[in-house]
Amino acid sequence: MPTVSKKGEQMPQSPIRKLVPFAEQAAKNGKNIYYLNIGQPDIKTPEVALKAVKENNVEILSYSKSEGSEIYRQKITNYFKDHDIHVNAKDIVVTTGASEALLFVFGSIMDPDDEVIISEPFYANYIAFSTASGINVVPIVSKIEDNFALPSVEAFEKLITPKTKAILICNPGNPTGNLYSKEEIQKLTAIVKKHDLFLIADEVYREFVYDGETHYSIMQEKELEQHAIMIDSVSKRYSMCGARIGCLVSKNESVIQTAIKFAQARLSPPTYAQIASEAALDTPRSYFDNIINEYIERRDTVITELQKIEGIKVSKPKGAFYCVAELPIKNSDHFAQWLLEHFDVNGETVMVAPAGGFYSTPGYGLNQIRIAYVLNKKSLIKAVNIIKEALKVYKD
Amino acid sequence: MPTVSKKGEQMPQSPIRKLVPFAEQAAKNGKNIYYLNIGQPDIKTPEVALKAVKENNVEILSYSKSEGSEIYRQKITNYFKDHDIHVNAKDIVVTTGASEALLFVFGSIMDPDDEVIISEPFYANYIAFSTASGINVVPIVSKIEDNFALPSVEAFEKLITPKTKAILICNPGNPTGNLYSKEEIQKLTAIVKKHDLFLIADEVYREFVYDGETHYSIMQEKELEQHAIMIDSVSKRYSMCGARIGCLVSKNESVIQTAIKFAQARLSPPTYAQIASEAALDTPRSYFDNIINEYIERRDTVITELQKIEGIKVSKPKGAFYCVAELPIKNSDHFAQWLLEHFDVNGETVMVAPAGGFYSTPGYGLNQIRIAYVLNKKSLIKAVNIIKEALKVYKD
Ligand SMILES: Cc1ncc(COP(=O)(O)O)c(C=O)c1O
Ligand SMILES: Cc1ncc(COP(=O)(O)O)c(C=O)c1O
Repeated sequence: MPTVSKKGEQMPQSPIRKLVPFAEQAAKNGKNIYYLNIGQPDIKTPEVALKAVKENNVEILSYSKSEGSEIYRQKITNYFKDHDIHVNAKDIVVTTGASEALLFVFGSIMDPDDEVIISEPFYANYIAFSTASGINVVPIVSKIEDNFALPSVEAFEKLITPKTKAILICNPGNPTGNLYSKEEIQKLTAIVKKHDLFLIADEVYREFVYDGETHYSIMQEKELEQHAIMIDSVSKRYSMCGARIGCLVSKNESVIQTAIKFAQARLSPPTYAQIASEAALDTPRSYFDNIINEYIERRDTVITELQKIEGIKVSKPKGAFYCVAELPIKNSDHFAQWLLEHFDVNGETVMVAPAGGFYSTPGYGLNQIRIAYVLNKKSLIKAVNIIKEALKVYKD
Repeated sequence: MPTVSKKGEQMPQSPIRKLVPFAEQAAKNGKNIYYLNIGQPDIKTPEVALKAVKENNVEILSYSKSEGSEIYRQKITNYFKDHDIHVNAKDIVVTTGASEALLFVFGSIMDPDDEVIISEPFYANYIAFSTASGINVVPIVSKIEDNFALPSVEAFEKLITPKTKAILICNPGNPTGNLYSKEEIQKLTAIVKKHDLFLIADEVYREFVYDGETHYSIMQEKELEQHAIMIDSVSKRYSMCGARIGCLVSKNESVIQTAIKFAQARLSPPTYAQIASEAALDTPRSYFDNIINEYIERRDTVITELQKIEGIKVSKPKGAFYCVAELPIKNSDHFAQWLLEHFDVNGETVMVAPAGGFYSTPGYGLNQIRIAYVLNKKSLIKAVNIIKEALKVYKD
C-alpha cells in the first residue's frame, strides 16, 4: 500500500481543529458554546457586496485573468491610496485569499531549506505554508510582558544566516493584537536593507486599529521599495472570509512576475468573489466606523473581564480582534478540551484556541490561550465568566 | 536587492501566455482572432447554477468547512454514483479547482525529488505544479501515430525507480483527446499494484466522451482502492471555469486525511462557488446531451477540415475538446506568433497553442499545435482555413 509523503506527515494540524470533534460532541449533548476560537467575525458583509453578487449578469462563468480582473486590480489601488499606500495595478496579484498570497510569496522568494524569521506567537498557518513550501520558520520570541512588541535589532541579527531570505510580520497581529509603530517598521527596514532580505507584512487586519492609532504599512516606507511584499485580504475587512479573495502587493517587479507564474498555473481566482470584492470597495465609511467602535467595546469588555481573573496575564491589543491570555495552568490544549468535555455554567461553555499552535519553539505558549473577540459584549462577558469559574475547579 | 527563488525562476511560463501580448496587439490593430488556444468553452453555464447564486441569501459570507461544505460533499456522491463511481462524502476533499486538488495530491504523496510518470503530451500545468512542489515529472512518450494510446507496460516499467511515487493520467486527455479503455486502466492497475505506486487520474473531462464510448474511471477498478486518487472539477462539466471548484477523491484514508491538512491551512474553498456547484448538480441531462452533440459536430468539423491540409497529421479525439495536429513546420511557437503578428485572411487570424509546452522532453512537439474546439462550427471552419492558407506562405 503506497504511503503519504513525509511532508504530508509533517503538515501540522491546527490545535483548534483537534478540538472540533469535542465541540461537536458538546453541542450534540446540548451544551451552548461560545466560540472564541476562530477569526470568523459575526459582522454582516457589506450590503453593496452581497447585492453585486445577487445582481450579477454572468452567463458564462469563465476564468478571469490569472493575476486578477483588470478592473478589480485597478479599483483596489484607490482603496490603497486612501490608506496612503501608493501602488499601481501592475504591482498587485489577486489571490484566493491571503492564504494563497502567502504560498505564492514563499514559493517566489524561497527555495527548500531557506529560512524566514517570524516573531512568535504567530498565525499558526504560517507553519503550514512553510511546511508545504519546504522552508523553515525561525522563530524570534516576543513577550506578553512587553505587549508583544518588536524584538530588538540585535535579537534579529543573531538569527540571520546565509539561508535567511525574509522577515515576516503580521501587523496588526494575530494572535497578539499587537500593532507595530512607524519606528518599529523603520527598525525592520534597516535590518532587511542591511542583510538584503525581503520584508513580508501580512496586513489583513489593517482596518482594525484602536485608540486613535494609525496603521503604518511597509508599503509607506520608501526605502523598502525592492524589499517589501504586502499581503492583503477582503476576509476580515468586509467580513467576507468565504469569498476567498486576497492579494499580494510589491514594487519589486521580479517578485510580481514570479508570483504571476504561480498564479497562471492555477488559472484564476474565483469570479463571483471578485465581483463581491470589487463592489465591496464602495462600502461606506460608516460601516467601518461602526465596526471599529464595536470592536473597541468588545476588546475593552474582554480585557476588563479577563483582568478580574486571579493569576491571569493579558496583553492589551491595539489592533485585530484577538488577545493572548496567560492562565495559571500547565497545558491549555488539555484545558480547552476539558472546557468542552467536562465543564459548563448553566449548560454553557466556551471554546478557546490553545496558544501552543502559535509558537514553533516547542513548549512555548502552553499556558496561554488566544481569545478572538468576535462575539457581542453580552456573550463575551458570559464566556469570560465561564473561564473564570472553570479555573476555580480545573486541575491540570 | 533581494532576488527571487530558483524555484520561482524555474516555474514555467506557459507558451500560450507568451503569445498573449501578440494577440492583444493584433486585436488592437483591428484583427479578428479565433481563439482556439485555451479550454474556455463558449457554452452557457447551466441556468440552475446561475440562479442559485443570484438567489442566495448569505448575510455573513463566512469560511466554509476546509474539506468543503457537508451538503455539497454529500450531494456530489450522487453525481458520482450516476457514473458508477461509488464513494462517500468522507472520501472527498473539495478544492479550489482541479488545480488546487493537484497541488494537494502532489504535496500529500510526494516529497522533494520524488518522481511522477506522466505520458506526454500532457496538460502543461502539471509541470508547473511539479515545480512548485519540488518534484520531478518523468515523461513517457505517446505518439500521434497511435492516437496517443497508452504506452506499453514495459515502457512504464523501464522508468520506475525507487523515487517513483505515482503515475498520473489525464482521461479524457488534454491535449490529446485520448480516452483510455477499461483494458488500458487495468494495465495501469497491474503496474501500480506491482510497484506499490499511486495512480492519479485527472478526470475533469469525464462528460466529454464521444462515439458512444463510455468513460471508465480509475474509481471503478476495485483492485485500486488504496492506490487510486481521482481529480475532478466543475470547470468544464458545467462551463463554470470561473467558479474554482474541484475535488480530489480517494478511498485511501491517509491520503484524504493528509490532503485535509493542506486544505485546513488555506481555510476553505470559495463559498459562492460552492453554492453554484451544488445547484449545478441538478443540471438536466438534456444540457449535456446538447453539449456533447455540439462537441461531436465540432470535432468532426475540425478534423475534417484539418485533414484537407497537405502535410498535416492529426489525431482523432475520442474525448475532451482538444486535438493535436502535426504541421509541416519546424517551430510552432514561431508559427503561432507569426499568425498573430503577420498573417490574416480578410482581417482575421487564429490563435493556437504551440504543443512544445505539453511535452517535458526538450525538442518534442515543436512541429505540433493543440486546437481547442471551443467555438462554433462556422468559426472553426474559418479558423482552420486560415491555418491552411497560412501554411501556404509561412516560412520557418
Ligand atoms: C494573520 C492572518 N493572515 C492570513 C489569514 C488568511 O486569510 P484569508 O481568509 O484571506 O486566506 C488569516 C485568517 O485568519 C490571518 O489571521
Ligand atoms: C486536464 C486539466 N486538468 C486540470 C485543469 C484545471 O482545471 P480547474 O479549472 O478545475 O482548476 C484543466 C484546465 O484546463 C485541465 O485541462
